[in-house]
Amino acid sequence: MSYQQMSREELLGLKGKLNEKYEEIKAKGLSLDMSRGKPSVAQLDIAMGMMDVLDGHSDMRSENGVDTRNYGSLDGIPEAKKLMADMMEVPEENVIVYGNSSLSVMYDAVARAMTQGVMGSTPWCKLDKVKFLCPVPGYDRHFAITEYFGIEMINIPMTQTGPDMDLVEKFVSEDKAVKGIWCVPKYSNPQGISYSDETVKRFARLKPAAEDFRIYWDNAYGIHHLYDEDQDYLIEILDECKKAGNPDLVYKFSSTSKISFAGAGIAAFAASEGNLIDAKKQLTLQTIGYDKINQLRHVKFFKDLDGMIEHMKKHAEIMRPKFEAVLTTLDRELGKLEIGSWYRPKGGYFISFDALEGCAKEIVTKCKEAGVTLTKAGAAFPYGKDPLDSNIRIAPSYPTLEELKQATDLFVLCVKLVSIDKVLEKK
Amino acid sequence: MSYQQMSREELLGLKGKLNEKYEEIKAKGLSLDMSRGKPSVAQLDIAMGMMDVLDGHSDMRSENGVDTRNYGSLDGIPEAKKLMADMMEVPEENVIVYGNSSLSVMYDAVARAMTQGVMGSTPWCKLDKVKFLCPVPGYDRHFAITEYFGIEMINIPMTQTGPDMDLVEKFVSEDKAVKGIWCVPKYSNPQGISYSDETVKRFARLKPAAEDFRIYWDNAYGIHHLYDEDQDYLIEILDECKKAGNPDLVYKFSSTSKISFAGAGIAAFAASEGNLIDAKKQLTLQTIGYDKINQLRHVKFFKDLDGMIEHMKKHAEIMRPKFEAVLTTLDRELGKLEIGSWYRPKGGYFISFDALEGCAKEIVTKCKEAGVTLTKAGAAFPYGKDPLDSNIRIAPSYPTLEELKQATDLFVLCVKLVSIDKVLEKK
Repeated sequence: MSYQQMSREELLGLKGKLNEKYEEIKAKGLSLDMSRGKPSVAQLDIAMGMMDVLDGHSDMRSENGVDTRNYGSLDGIPEAKKLMADMMEVPEENVIVYGNSSLSVMYDAVARAMTQGVMGSTPWCKLDKVKFLCPVPGYDRHFAITEYFGIEMINIPMTQTGPDMDLVEKFVSEDKAVKGIWCVPKYSNPQGISYSDETVKRFARLKPAAEDFRIYWDNAYGIHHLYDEDQDYLIEILDECKKAGNPDLVYKFSSTSKISFAGAGIAAFAASEGNLIDAKKQLTLQTIGYDKINQLRHVKFFKDLDGMIEHMKKHAEIMRPKFEAVLTTLDRELGKLEIGSWYRPKGGYFISFDALEGCAKEIVTKCKEAGVTLTKAGAAFPYGKDPLDSNIRIAPSYPTLEELKQATDLFVLCVKLVSIDKVLEKK
Repeated sequence: MSYQQMSREELLGLKGKLNEKYEEIKAKGLSLDMSRGKPSVAQLDIAMGMMDVLDGHSDMRSENGVDTRNYGSLDGIPEAKKLMADMMEVPEENVIVYGNSSLSVMYDAVARAMTQGVMGSTPWCKLDKVKFLCPVPGYDRHFAITEYFGIEMINIPMTQTGPDMDLVEKFVSEDKAVKGIWCVPKYSNPQGISYSDETVKRFARLKPAAEDFRIYWDNAYGIHHLYDEDQDYLIEILDECKKAGNPDLVYKFSSTSKISFAGAGIAAFAASEGNLIDAKKQLTLQTIGYDKINQLRHVKFFKDLDGMIEHMKKHAEIMRPKFEAVLTTLDRELGKLEIGSWYRPKGGYFISFDALEGCAKEIVTKCKEAGVTLTKAGAAFPYGKDPLDSNIRIAPSYPTLEELKQATDLFVLCVKLVSIDKVLEKK
C-alpha cells in the first residue's frame, strides 16, 4: 500500500517501528561512502598489469620513433591517438591526447573562451553576460567550472531521451548570450540516461544565435556498460554535426580514468580541424607536451579498442552486482510506496533517486547521521540548488558489495522515515 | 688580432678562405640540432631505473594510506610534497605538487589572474592595461604566455648579478599596471647567470604599486650544476620575502623535467598560504588530482633530496664535457677577435652568445643553411625581437659530444663570416 493511502495512525505506527530500526543501525557506527563515482579497489586491481608493461629495459620510443621520455609530441603519440580515437569513435586526426584528467580539458576549453574567445569570437570576459544550458540533474563539476567563471547557468530538465530539446533549441537559437551546454550523453551522470537518436540529431542541427556556441559533450561513460548484451548505442556526434553542416558545433571529451586508473589515466579531446587549431594555440603555450610514457603504457597494456572492451567486461563484472543490489533493494522496499522514483541504468556510475519534493536534504542528513555519506543533496544542480529538493545521487562503485547492501538498507529506511513525515504534514 | 684591427684586404682574404671551409662543411649535409634545452638520450637513460620501482605487485598506497591509483589528494601525496619541498628549499606546507609540466603551472597562474584576479584583486581581463617586466635575454616560453594574454612586456636588461634592479624597483613601485616579472634566478635561461644575494634581497623588498604584483620565480635549474665544487648558491626567496614582510610577493615554480624525464616528470608550485588558497580555488575545479602514481614513482626512485643530488651528478658528467667543448671552441676561435662575448655558466642548460650588433639573425640563418639548427634569433626577447639583433642561445644538451663539436665548429665559422661582412661595412 502506498503511504498516501495509509491513515495517519498507520503512518505513525510505522514510523515508530522504522525509528527503532534506524536507531539500531545508527548504534552500529557505520562509516560508508556512496558520495563519489570512485572506482573500488577491486576495479583498480584489474589494471595492475599496466605497471608491468614497461621496465628499465623497455624501448621507450613511440611507433614514429619519438622518445616518450623527452619533450615534444604536443598532441600525443600516434598509437595513443589511435586508441583514444577508436574509443571515441572519431578519426585520429580529430583527436588530441591530454594528461590524466578530462575535467582539465573541459576547464581549459571554457577558460580559453573566457580570455581568447572561440575561433576568433570576442573573449567571453569582454561580454556583459555569458550563459550555459545545464541539463539537470547533471554533473556537479561541470557546473562548478561555469560558476567559477561567472557564467549564468540555466536549468534544462532531463527527459528519458536526453535534455528537453524544445527548450534547448529555443534558448540556443534565440539568445546570443547562450554559449554552451554541458552534456553527458551516454549513461548520464547521475541518471544513467542515454540520449536517443532523435536527441543527438537535434543537437547536431542546432542553429545557434551565437557563433561561439559549442556543445560540451562529455562522453565519460562511452564504453562503461553493465551488461554484455543490453547496451545503449549513441549516434556519433562529431560525424553527425559534420553531416548536418555544423562541423564546429561540438567539443567531445573523454578519458580512461574509469578504465585504467582514476588518478593516472589519459584524457582526450575530439573536435573539428578548426576547433583543434584553436585549442592548440593555447596548448602550445601551456605545456611542452603531456606525459607520453603514460600514453605508451596505456597502449602497451590495452593494445587496441578490443583489448579495452575486454577490460571493461571485468569492470562490469564488479559493477553489475552493485547496481543490481541497490536496485533490488529499492524495488523491494520502495517499489509500491509512491515515495520515490529511479531509473535502471545500463551503464555508467550512478543511480539517481527522486524523493518526494522537499525530502532530499533531510534524507541525506539522516543517512549521514547514521554513518552513510551520500552526495550532497542539490549537488546535481547549478549552484547546488535543486528547486524541488528531490534528487539524490547514489554512487555504488566504491564500497564493497557487503558495505553497499548495508548502506542501501539504511538509505531506504531514511527515505521511508522522511517521507512519512512529509505525507503526514499534508494529512 | 681583432677583426677591427685588420685591413680591408686582410679581411677579404680571410673571408675567401673561411668561405671555402664553409662550403666544405655545407657539402657534408649535416643535420644537427642545438635549438632547445632538451636532455640527451644518455641523460634519459640514467633515469630508466624509475621504470622498475613499481610493478604489478607493488603497494600503491602513499605513506598516509591514500591509493595513488584512485582520485583525490589534490595537492599531492605527502612524500612527493616533501621531496619537492626539499628540492625547492621551502617547507612542505607551502608546496602543491602538479602534473608533468611547470610551464602549465605558470600558465595557470597567469590565466587565473586574468579571469579571477589575485587574492581578491580585479581580474586582469577587466583592466585596460596589464604589464610584465621581462629580464632579457630570457626564456621564450615565458614571454609567449604573457603575449598570448595580451600583456604588455617591458624589457629589463640582465646584468652579471641578475636583472637591472634599479629599473625593476622603479617600474614596480611606480606603475600599477605592472603585475609581474618573469625570473629564472639560478643558471638563468639563456645566460646561466645566478642572481646575487643583493638582487634576491632587493626582490624580496620590492614595494609594488599593484597589490596583485607577483614575482614569477621559475627555479628551473635549482640543482642543475655542472661542477661538484664550483656551484652557485641563492638566497631562498620565499623565506626572504617573509622576513621582509612581503610573504605573498612571490610564486616559485620548479619541476623534475630535467632531473627524471623531460616529458614525464612532476612539477611543483611553492607560495605563501594566501597564494596557495587562491591557487587551490582554481585547482579544485580544474582537476580531481594529478597523476599520483608518477609522484610515488619519483619518490621510490630518488628516495630523498640526497638521492636526487646524487642523480644530478650523473647529469653533470654528461653535460659538463658538452659545455666545455663549446666554451673551449669559442675561446680558441673567437677569443681575441672582438666579434662576440659569452658567459661561462656553472649550471643550467644554455650558453648565451652575443654577436656584433645586427649579426645574430644572419649567423643563425647561415648555420641553418649548413645543417645546424640554433634557437631562432630574437627568441630570448619579448615578441621575438632582439633590439640589437645580437643574442644567440646555444643549447648543447641534446646532440652527442661528437655532433656538438661539429656544430660548434660550424657556428664559430658562421660568426666569423657574418662578422667580417659587418666590420667591412664600416671600413
